Parts: sequence; C-alpha cells; structure tokens
Amino acid sequence: MKKLINNPENAVVEELQGVAAAHPDLVKVHFNPNFVVRADAPVKGKVGILSGGGSGHEPMHGGFVGMGMLDAACPGAVFTSPTPDQMLEATKAIDAGAGVLHIVKNYTGDIMNFEMAADLARGEGIQVESVVIDDDVAVKDSLYTAGRRGVGSTVLAEKVCGAAAEQGLSLAQVADVCKKVKDWGRSMGMALTSCTVPHVGKPTFDLPENEMEIGIGIHGEPGRVRMELKSADEIVEMLMEPIISDIPYKAGDEVLMFVNGMGGTPLLELYIVYRKAYEIATKHGLKVVRNMVGPYITSLEMAGTSITMLKMDDQLTKLWDAPVKTPALRWGV
Amino acid sequence: MKKLINNPENAVVEELQGVAAAHPDLVKVHFNPNFVVRADAPVKGKVGILSGGGSGHEPMHGGFVGMGMLDAACPGAVFTSPTPDQMLEATKAIDAGAGVLHIVKNYTGDIMNFEMAADLARGEGIQVESVVIDDDVAVKDSLYTAGRRGVGSTVLAEKVCGAAAEQGLSLAQVADVCKKVKDWGRSMGMALTSCTVPHVGKPTFDLPENEMEIGIGIHGEPGRVRMELKSADEIVEMLMEPIISDIPYKAGDEVLMFVNGMGGTPLLELYIVYRKAYEIATKHGLKVVRNMVGPYITSLEMAGTSITMLKMDDQLTKLWDAPVKTPALRWGV
Repeated sequence: MKKLINNPENAVVEELQGVAAAHPDLVKVHFNPNFVVRADAPVKGKVGILSGGGSGHEPMHGGFVGMGMLDAACPGAVFTSPTPDQMLEATKAIDAGAGVLHIVKNYTGDIMNFEMAADLARGEGIQVESVVIDDDVAVKDSLYTAGRRGVGSTVLAEKVCGAAAEQGLSLAQVADVCKKVKDWGRSMGMALTSCTVPHVGKPTFDLPENEMEIGIGIHGEPGRVRMELKSADEIVEMLMEPIISDIPYKAGDEVLMFVNGMGGTPLLELYIVYRKAYEIATKHGLKVVRNMVGPYITSLEMAGTSITMLKMDDQLTKLWDAPVKTPALRWGV
Repeated sequence: MKKLINNPENAVVEELQGVAAAHPDLVKVHFNPNFVVRADAPVKGKVGILSGGGSGHEPMHGGFVGMGMLDAACPGAVFTSPTPDQMLEATKAIDAGAGVLHIVKNYTGDIMNFEMAADLARGEGIQVESVVIDDDVAVKDSLYTAGRRGVGSTVLAEKVCGAAAEQGLSLAQVADVCKKVKDWGRSMGMALTSCTVPHVGKPTFDLPENEMEIGIGIHGEPGRVRMELKSADEIVEMLMEPIISDIPYKAGDEVLMFVNGMGGTPLLELYIVYRKAYEIATKHGLKVVRNMVGPYITSLEMAGTSITMLKMDDQLTKLWDAPVKTPALRWGV
C-alpha cells in the first residue's frame, strides 16, 4: 500500500486537522465527535444543511462546507457511515431555529444513523427533514444498499439546497428543492482500478490489467458487468444509455452534465469523457446548460469516472449559479 | 495501460474538444495550431499573458485561461513542448497593442521554442517579454533541463500576473511581478508511482512496491534519491527542509503554501501533507497567509505530491485575492 499517510488509524483525523489549518476563514473542525462546520454557524434565520458519510470521497462532503452550500458535514471512517452522535451534534451546531435538512446518500448504515440522529434532534425541539439521494442507475440493490445507491447527484443537491437556504427558503421549501434533485438526477460510474482502504491495506477488489467494471459503486461495490477494457467513447456510451433512458429525458430538456473523476483519473481523460457525453446528450436533443468536470465525489485513488445528469429548470439553474464559497467549490464571491 | 482514451494519438485533441464543449463562456479552442484562448481575446488595452508546455499536467495550463489569469495557453503533445507556430499564433491572438508576457517553465524545449516564437512575434511588431520559472530545488540539472526545473510556482505566477495585467499594469510591470514569483517561489516534489504516457503505453519508470522517489520532476525525471517508503510526516520534512533553507526565509515572513497533487493522490492525503507542512512552516516562524490544496500541476495519474512556498508581500497578496474566472480556478466573480 503506497499512501501519503502516517498511522492508517489516524488518517481521517489528520486530514481534518489539515482542513482546519488550511481553511479557518471558511470552516471550523469539531473533534469528538468529528464534524466540519461553517465558521459562522449557526447562521441566523437560515435553514441548516447537513450531509455526511464515510471518508474517502473527498472533497465530498467536508470540502463543500461554507456559504451557499453545506452548514456542516460529518465524516465517518473511510467508507464507513458516521455515527448518530456526530450527526446530532452537527445538527445542533447549525440549527438557528429554522430547522435542518439532512441530505443522505442511500446506504443502509447512513440511512439508519441519520434517522436516529433526526429522531434525537427532534426530541430536543429541532425541526429536521431528510431527503435520501438514490440516483445510481447501475444496480437495484447492492452490497450496502437496499434500492439504488446515492452518488453524484448528492453534490448537486448540496449546492442547490445550500443556495436555497441562503435565499431564505423555509425548511419544507428547501426539502422540496432536494427532492427535485433526487427525482431529476441520474448517475452511473465505472472503474479501471480498485482503491485501497488505508486500514485494510490491500485493494478492495482485483481487476485484471485488461478489464474494467461498469456500474461500480463508490466503495468498490459490484456493478453491472466486468468486461475487457474498451475505448473511452464506448465506455461513455455504456454509461449514458442507462442514464438517458431512465428519466426519460425528452428533446429540448435542459440538463446539467457532471463528469466526475473517481480519484486516480487525470483531468485530461475526464475531458475526453465529457466530449463524448456532451455529444450523446446533444444528439438526444438535450441542451447542456451547465456542467462540472473534475474529481468531486471520489473513491480514494480509484481510476475511473462517473457521469451524472440532472434535468434543470429555471429554479435549479438560478440556485446553481448563486454564489458559493467552500474549500472545493467557489464562485461569485 | 488503463486509460479513458480512444486512439492515444488523438488524446490531446479530444481533450481540447472536451474543453471547448464544456467552457464556451470562458475559452475558445483554436486547432492547427492548437491553443486555448480567452473567449473575449484580445482584451483592449491589457497586456496579454501566455503560457504553455507539454500536455499531461492538467489543469495547467489550459484550465487557467480566463479573466484574471492567462489569455492563452499552448498545449504540446503529452510531456512534449508545444511548437513555435502555436506560440506565435497565440501571441498574435491575444496582443491588444500592450504587449504579451510569456511565462515559460525551464525545460530546454520550452525555452528554445518560446524564444523563437518571441523573436517571430517581435518581427511582426508585438512587444514580448519572457520570464522563465525555475523553482524546483530538488536538482540542479535534469533530464530535460539546464538549471532548475520549473514547476508549481508557474501556477502562482499565472494567477498574479493575470491579475496584474487585468489591473492595467504595463508589460514591464507585469514582467516584474513574474520575476518576483520566480525569485520568491520554491518547490519540491515526490512520487509514489510512475505514470504512463498514452502514446508510449508503459510506465515511464519502475518504482518497486515499497519505494518512493524524492525530488522527482513532473515528467518522471529522476529526483534526488529513491528510498523505502516513509510516513507522510517524514516525507513532508524531506520536502520542506530544502525549500525553507533555499530562500532563506526569515521568521515573520508571510508565505503562500501550495500543496499539489500529482494526479493519482487523493485529496484526503493532500490534507495530511498540508497539516505537516503548515506545522513546519509555523515552527520556522513563517506566517501562512494564503494556501491552495489540490491537483493543479499534475503528471497524468502519478501518485505523489509537491509543495510550493511563495514568499508574499502586500502586492502579491492583493493580486492573489483579485477575481479570477477560469475552468480550474475561480473566485470573486
């Protein structure tokens, strides 16, 4: 295992110490229990937005804490759900009386712990709404999931819900924005290589030199099929077809196209992926009105990509364009 | 070789097609000869800023074209200098009468071709100044370099020179800003793994499972030493010591700390690196006033990191903070 770490057991805490040292103007890091929180939380009058999940997907979620996006993020151990006490303390830290939205990715551990935290927070008089993102069209049930997994749409939901909260929308209204992203976003990913969880010390799975896995999950969970390595264009076709046929989109629809890197794939390749994904979307009559290309929801050093398409309307486009100031995503300020 | 590409020979052109499809609001891509240019170039009254170099280091340089940074970037083949005709055409495309600054990394091919392009442009009546960045303290001469190699400071120079040009400084003044970065910036990198150039098809070098290379170049050129893999903290000490002792910094100096990922290293690890680099800088009495953490000058999918420190003064800090709007770096707008 070749990694820039010290003791594998301390990797997440040392990463959080690095985040705290790098971004004191944007975030504070709370330890025991661990969460990353906006430096100015709780923000008066504003709905709080909380997400979280296993570490190893950076910059998601901690890199998205700041003005116009998340108020807090709870990092678990690598590829392991955070605990209810993290979520409860973070919820309390960001509630300003307007309630808190939990954006949850559909994994059994995350669901269970966020539900428990929401119940505990409600017991303390905090309004909590939860929306579960389950946008991965690759498989129905999976290693850690009943139903579809939650992947790339989560990043988009965090951005637009953060903007909605910033603009003073109510908890119910912000939750409605999140449900729209849940309903209108679809994703699918693939891997060229495995990744290695630090405290495990060996690759999560074996993938022979000439093979790839289509439909893989962000923790290396099995996808749809393993097959011989294909060209980028053929791979993008295999990812785009299930996404486009699932919604279904109709000609003239506006979409946001998000080409994500899994961690170990160079940007040069992601733009080759974008080129073909854009071509396919356009051929279907879709209008790509916004996009994002880069590693935003990763699987440690896994080589591979995922594509997320989100149907857009005027509300989502305006929320997407609104100012954001976080360690990993920033514009307008 | 596992890559998301089609024909290796077309990888750079297809990447540029992806960039053109993704960012038409920010840049245009010119083919034959290839360069990425600001959508609104030439910008009236403004000094033009041009850089370029081999591809494979994305987002540098093409990802830094836009308001407040580069006016154009010339991409060569992977790890290969662009040609004088690319540089000449790009220079002509961005000159608005105030002249053009060439920001050149110190590699023999880049130097030679940028010199030839500058001569040709001057022959056509365009004022050109060139500044060569040579900030890598690892080695004196190297595989493709006489003197020190140009690495991470290049990204910082592109940002502050772009801001200086935007504020209406003259060509001589913008060149002076660039020389300040050249004088005040120092870098050193290391690799855990090699990378594979697409049209070569096999790793550039072999690095056994338990070894790393300290002082490596961004094309896999030999560094100072190969040794057994150490902890992140020990590695950061080995990178920081030569940087700090080279300037030399004195207690109280303000610095920008840039922890760069080589392409295949997760952000989680880069923050562990930042944590220790920040601790060492602080212990030396340096005040880290700005920072950047992420993959900005990469070596395809190489796993590893580099650290760049730039001494800051009021001028550089103000230029750093100025608005920028490019595919890879954006704030303030």
